[in-house]
Amino acid sequence: MQMTAPRWKAALDKALAAHSKETVIQLASIDPSTPVPHVRSLIFRSFVSPIDNPSHPLLLATTDIRTPKTAQMIANPNVQVVWWISGAQEQYRIAGRAHIIPARGHTLHKHFMHPVGALGLGANFDWEEKRIEVFKSMSPMMKASWCRPVPGSHLEGGPDEAKKWPVKLEEPKAGDEEGKRLWDMSLSNFALVVIEPQDIDYVELEPIPNRRTRFWRAGNVWNEEALVP
Amino acid sequence: MQMTAPRWKAALDKALAAHSKETVIQLASIDPSTPVPHVRSLIFRSFVSPIDNPSHPLLLATTDIRTPKTAQMIANPNVQVVWWISGAQEQYRIAGRAHIIPARGHTLHKHFMHPVGALGLGANFDWEEKRIEVFKSMSPMMKASWCRPVPGSHLEGGPDEAKKWPVKLEEPKAGDEEGKRLWDMSLSNFALVVIEPQDIDYVELEPIPNRRTRFWRAGNVWNEEALVP
Repeated sequence: MQMTAPRWKAALDKALAAHSKETVIQLASIDPSTPVPHVRSLIFRSFVSPIDNPSHPLLLATTDIRTPKTAQMIANPNVQVVWWISGAQEQYRIAGRAHIIPARGHTLHKHFMHPVGALGLGANFDWEEKRIEVFKSMSPMMKASWCRPVPGSHLEGGPDEAKKWPVKLEEPKAGDEEGKRLWDMSLSNFALVVIEPQDIDYVELEPIPNRRTRFWRAGNVWNEEALVP
Repeated sequence: MQMTAPRWKAALDKALAAHSKETVIQLASIDPSTPVPHVRSLIFRSFVSPIDNPSHPLLLATTDIRTPKTAQMIANPNVQVVWWISGAQEQYRIAGRAHIIPARGHTLHKHFMHPVGALGLGANFDWEEKRIEVFKSMSPMMKASWCRPVPGSHLEGGPDEAKKWPVKLEEPKAGDEEGKRLWDMSLSNFALVVIEPQDIDYVELEPIPNRRTRFWRAGNVWNEEALVP
């Protein structure tokens, strides 16, 4: 069994180390009610993988649980991420399964299946703790964004109403009731998006001739094949 | 009837004028044989629209006709493009229909339906002429890329074989038989991807509060609605 990180992950780590600001990824999903694809930009936050098994890195992003993409991915977890790292002239297309992880008490939490080892992290991994840790690491502006009305809904009251939204949200001090109410609201709308990579299409445009490699996972083993770019 | 360019197009033109290198877009499509989304980076080439009717701008990109995305979009023309313009802190999500335009004699050309006015350009618009014009505007390196074996196929012969591929391709001079063979091959594999925008989700992250607007097309009229970001 291969217990080292897959080669595509090492390449991606290297590209990211050299171009650390290039963390915008695009995530495509399908709305199961129509045969229409959806795609939007997200920020890559980090990889998560079991210390004793780096062969199975999970890609971590975040979202507002009220956005349409969470329902799309719960209904059809097949997604593809495309990550163009301009500075390295490399594109990673990462196909896999998405797991949406809302607050533990959230009504959508029941859809989050975490059977033993399913995400390679064991049954004891505390995703709620991880969710809160990631939430706390977000900027005050991002935290404030999860206190708005439902994203994508009609803007009731127009621009004047939007000016009433909090702009920054810091962890509330003891006795700050309004701050605590906003913090709790924000945290309850905050969800993790975890992508389990299964098939990667890696293109390198800097070398001449260009290179393209497919990696696909079978258990803990990653296979690879050289392709025509 | 609104015969001016839609407001989202004016905003995009402005962002592009200020950040002219940000022409990488991501195009999502669905493989109809599986419920799986696909997404990849493409280069935006230009807008095309009838001189007498700027209300209907078409988004132009290019591809190798042999890539899987052409078959996907012929089978299901519903696509979404996401365009993150980092310098402007703006995201455009453009949902619409894709038209694949291969060489006139190509076996897939029969799928390209161009009824009178279907793309707003009238029945006399010469797409083959446009295709050749765009082909000629491509860099010699891009032109050489369409002479390779089928993109995404197994790399027969390995890296040594790839070193035999032409690196640059210029228009052949009279009597250059090999140059003409490669030029014709490249041109026959070259196709236009034309996206007909129907629904745009425009997010502006620079203004505080952030702004989000939906635009959707009904005939020559674009409607718009302010949304919660």
